[in-house]
Amino acid sequence: MTKTIAFVLYPGLTALDLVGPLTVTTAVGPEFRSVVLAHDLAPQPSDAPLHLSATATFDEVSAPDIVIVPGGMGGTFKACADESLLAWLRQASTTAEVMASVCTGSLILGAAGLLQGRRATTHWGFRDLLPKFGAHPVDERWVRDGNVLTAAGVSAGIDMALQLVHLFAGEQAARNAQLVIEYDPEPPLGGIDWSTVDRPSFARLTQELVRSSLADHPELLARLAD
Amino acid sequence: MTKTIAFVLYPGLTALDLVGPLTVTTAVGPEFRSVVLAHDLAPQPSDAPLHLSATATFDEVSAPDIVIVPGGMGGTFKACADESLLAWLRQASTTAEVMASVCTGSLILGAAGLLQGRRATTHWGFRDLLPKFGAHPVDERWVRDGNVLTAAGVSAGIDMALQLVHLFAGEQAARNAQLVIEYDPEPPLGGIDWSTVDRPSFARLTQELVRSSLADHPELLARLAD
Repeated sequence: MTKTIAFVLYPGLTALDLVGPLTVTTAVGPEFRSVVLAHDLAPQPSDAPLHLSATATFDEVSAPDIVIVPGGMGGTFKACADESLLAWLRQASTTAEVMASVCTGSLILGAAGLLQGRRATTHWGFRDLLPKFGAHPVDERWVRDGNVLTAAGVSAGIDMALQLVHLFAGEQAARNAQLVIEYDPEPPLGGIDWSTVDRPSFARLTQELVRSSLADHPELLARLAD
Repeated sequence: MTKTIAFVLYPGLTALDLVGPLTVTTAVGPEFRSVVLAHDLAPQPSDAPLHLSATATFDEVSAPDIVIVPGGMGGTFKACADESLLAWLRQASTTAEVMASVCTGSLILGAAGLLQGRRATTHWGFRDLLPKFGAHPVDERWVRDGNVLTAAGVSAGIDMALQLVHLFAGEQAARNAQLVIEYDPEPPLGGIDWSTVDRPSFARLTQELVRSSLADHPELLARLAD
């Protein structure tokens, strides 16, 4: 049976958070039907010099099997205060088999109340915000807890999407999708050396971003600011 | 000095071919200015259920330092016959330090006459088409020959873009960009096992795609059909 996978599009998102997993799921055959949803079909700015347009509105798809919420920076914090989006996510979560996120998209799931008591992850630089939504942060590329599947930052959405394909369409479908997108990664400088990452500096940037993005949303600001 | 990196947008491209490297280059500081160019600013269909809009037109950026041409399936073959795009690429190549491609974007560079006598790569399933443009195909994740830098399929654009950042903005900038997009890949089923890939079947699909996409362009069809 065809699974409908709904991607959430909102202004200011990180385009790769959406396009990475979308490219994986559209490489799968008739087992998957991917749709990109937004409040309307107008082009939305991303955090790169590129606009993205959905092909359907939230109203048009009320009970997807899988939902994927991309992340971003300031636009994502604003989306955390978009009550209409949060209501749609809460409604979708009552029937969806998986509510997934990429990067800081998990904060939107958190703002919708869907991470309460759950293990979850997000972009490495924003992990400290997860407990403010009642979640237990974990340091993994992706983590599933009940019907909530969250991935680490940006590019982790590709790995998570392949895992979703594996779960719902089987190993061969996942291998085929990987082959179609030729995902045989060779980061030219190797993997990330986490021991050299300056976490305190990034934590300060995160807090500055929270303050600048949520100036018009004092309740959420009070919740997320240190 | 700021390098201008121009991404080429055309109807039917594979969104990840563009968005992967674009996310890398926009994560770099003032050393890089990324622009997405198309014939006009109208939303263009991609090969996923998502439209993309450029932020400038080809006419507005005549001498970029770096050009990146994404690939795709049928839309890419049609772009190989877009004389106005090919003319812009030929003009840009007279001053650009790097003419780059992702996936079958190299076929567009080939159609513009820019691969003659050069080592180049493309999506694994389309590599046999490269000699038809005078190129010498190589089996590498990315390959540079003179001012031409070509990457393998779809996701290889991320690796290639990190290499570009390394070349033009230094190792630290490349490591920072990798950290911003948390590119520490963990394909859930590991890398691709190339020994199991059914190349003859894919070669037949490639030829079918050439025939169906280029029915209106008999000269190019004759060149690319077996």
